[in-house]
Formats: sequence, C-alpha cells, structure tokens
Amino acid sequence: MKFCSVCSSEVKQRIPHGDNRLRFVCTTCETIHYENPKMVVGCLPEWQDKVLLCKRAIEPQYGKWTLPAGFMENAETTEQGALRETWEEAGARVEISHLFTLYNLPYISQVYLMFRAKLLDLNFSAGEESLEVRLFSEDEIPWDEIAFLTIEKTLRQYFEDRRKGHFEFHIGDVERRVK
Amino acid sequence: MKFCSVCSSEVKQRIPHGDNRLRFVCTTCETIHYENPKMVVGCLPEWQDKVLLCKRAIEPQYGKWTLPAGFMENAETTEQGALRETWEEAGARVEISHLFTLYNLPYISQVYLMFRAKLLDLNFSAGEESLEVRLFSEDEIPWDEIAFLTIEKTLRQYFEDRRKGHFEFHIGDVERRVK
Ligand SMILES: [Zn+2]
Ligand SMILES: [Zn+2]
Repeated sequence: MKFCSVCSSEVKQRIPHGDNRLRFVCTTCETIHYENPKMVVGCLPEWQDKVLLCKRAIEPQYGKWTLPAGFMENAETTEQGALRETWEEAGARVEISHLFTLYNLPYISQVYLMFRAKLLDLNFSAGEESLEVRLFSEDEIPWDEIAFLTIEKTLRQYFEDRRKGHFEFHIGDVERRVK
Repeated sequence: MKFCSVCSSEVKQRIPHGDNRLRFVCTTCETIHYENPKMVVGCLPEWQDKVLLCKRAIEPQYGKWTLPAGFMENAETTEQGALRETWEEAGARVEISHLFTLYNLPYISQVYLMFRAKLLDLNFSAGEESLEVRLFSEDEIPWDEIAFLTIEKTLRQYFEDRRKGHFEFHIGDVERRVK
C-alpha cells in the first residue's frame, strides 16, 4: 500500500495514537488503513461413502484436487459463502450439516472454515475454475495430488472421524507447507 | 474507495473478467481491490460460577458492558487474537478451552468467534479501552446494558448450556439490532 484510497495522498507506516501496531496512515487526511485476515469458506460434499473433489483450472495448484472453497464475500454468512463456492466451482447443490474444521494460517493471514454438507443430487459439473469434478471413495483419494495442506488435513480428519463413527468440530493451525 | 492504493489513479466499480461481482478496479494499473469480511475474536473468561465483563471506555456503546473481543490482526491465529484482546481490554490472563460461538453479521460483513476460557488469576484490570472490569454471576449480569447483541447471545447461550450441564459449539446469524 502506497497511496490513500480516500484522497490519493501518500500513506506512511506509523503507530496511531492509542494503538500498538504499525498501520498505513494517510499523510494528508489521516485515514488509518487497517489490514485484516481473510476467511476462506467451503464445503466437504458427501454422497453415500464418497466425497466430491474439484480439479483446479486456475493457479495456484493448477491441475491439483481440492474441496470447493474460496474467499468469503462481504454481506454474506459463512454458510452462504460455502454454498456459493460449492455452486460456482462444482455446480453442486448441497445442504450444510455442520461446521467441521477451522484452520488458522497465520503466515498468510487466512482462516479456513470447512462445512460438512450433503450433496442433494448428482447433477454437478465443473465450473469455470475447475477442470473436472468427481466423487471419490476414501481409497480413491489422490493424496499426492491435493492442492492445499488445509484441504488434505480436513479430508484426513473426515475419514478418521468417520471410522470412529463420530464427527466432531476440529480447530487447529497450519504451518507453511514444506514438501 | 476512490483511489488505487498501488498507483493513486482513480478506481471504478466494474465486474472483472471471470468474476461475477462489482469490484473496485484501478483505471490505470488494473489492480482489483477486493473487500472481504472481518473477524472479531474474543473470550468468555470464566472464574468459578462467574464470568468477566468489561465496561467500554470507547464508542460505540461507551459505558456498556461487553466480553473482551476485537478485530483479528494479520499474522495471528484466532486464539492468539482472542488472548490478545482479553489481555489488552481486561488485563486478564486466560487459558482457552473451546470455540463456543460463531455468529455471522452479514449486514456489517463481520464474523464473531468467541472462545470459552479459564481465567488464570484475579489480577485483571481495565485496559485503555475499558472503564472497569469485573466478575458477574448469572443473576448479576446487566442484561439491559450489554453493548452488542452478539455478546448478549453468547452470554445467554453460555448460561443455558451451563444449566444443561453440557457446552456445545453454536453457530448462528445475527440481524441488525432493533431496540
Ligand atoms: Zn488520505
Ligand atoms: Zn492503480
């Protein structure tokens, strides 16, 4: 950030009065431009013993598999965002059952919220950001081709809970992926 | 938003290629300036049968009571943010036990995440944003003087769960407060 979005003057980093962190502050109109973490919301769509994954048609991780998820938008709820992303990326209609995982990714200032959801029918199809959408049973999951560590952790937790016969809400932190 | 924070040119609202929403886009460098919901993170600090509330020393809702909570910052986890706010506003050291409530406030593009937490000692004291900090038993809670509906709902849910002898994670939406 170099310029003020309100008045176009230069911004400088300083600690505002009563604050304890460096912020971008306008040198003319004094507007403080806060920057905050973003939420990524998505679904883990279930159909019988299978789950639905999308093959990414965009970078990063083009060609890798993921659950439908994306940045939450203003004026929506976490659930609405998760449903919207599931529709946009997988053309899939689902009914959300529970919040399943919350993962903190502090190194990129993101929080992932993934919901368990029942797929309502099999009329899904790849959206613009997907090359392919299909159902996978546990032993078909392409573990080496999962796009993001948060998604891999959510899937592993899902199958672990399923084996236990009891789904819980899980919260955790994810560190930078080292491969 | 009127100007580009990257190059200071004017921004105009338009739907970028491959997108389906109006965004602020720079008329010169084409940077898309996304706007996303913010997270508010905080704690419900418990001590025996009492909970800790803060009397606000700032607007909005100056003089009203609330739980320690505030905007999550970049590079921290939700739990770190909740601990930081509890320290800053109440001078209180706590240990987080569970995520207790998630409330969507789509009309102001916010998501509240409130954690149950054990107060570790009684050496708390009002921070700069609080006039007073004290413990309340259920029958002492100043229900007519609670600053925010999300906080009131979190407190009511807490005492309801406590009566049932079983705390659960709760997710819900909060509409604009009508008083
Ligand atoms: Zn300015
Ligand atoms: Zn620009």
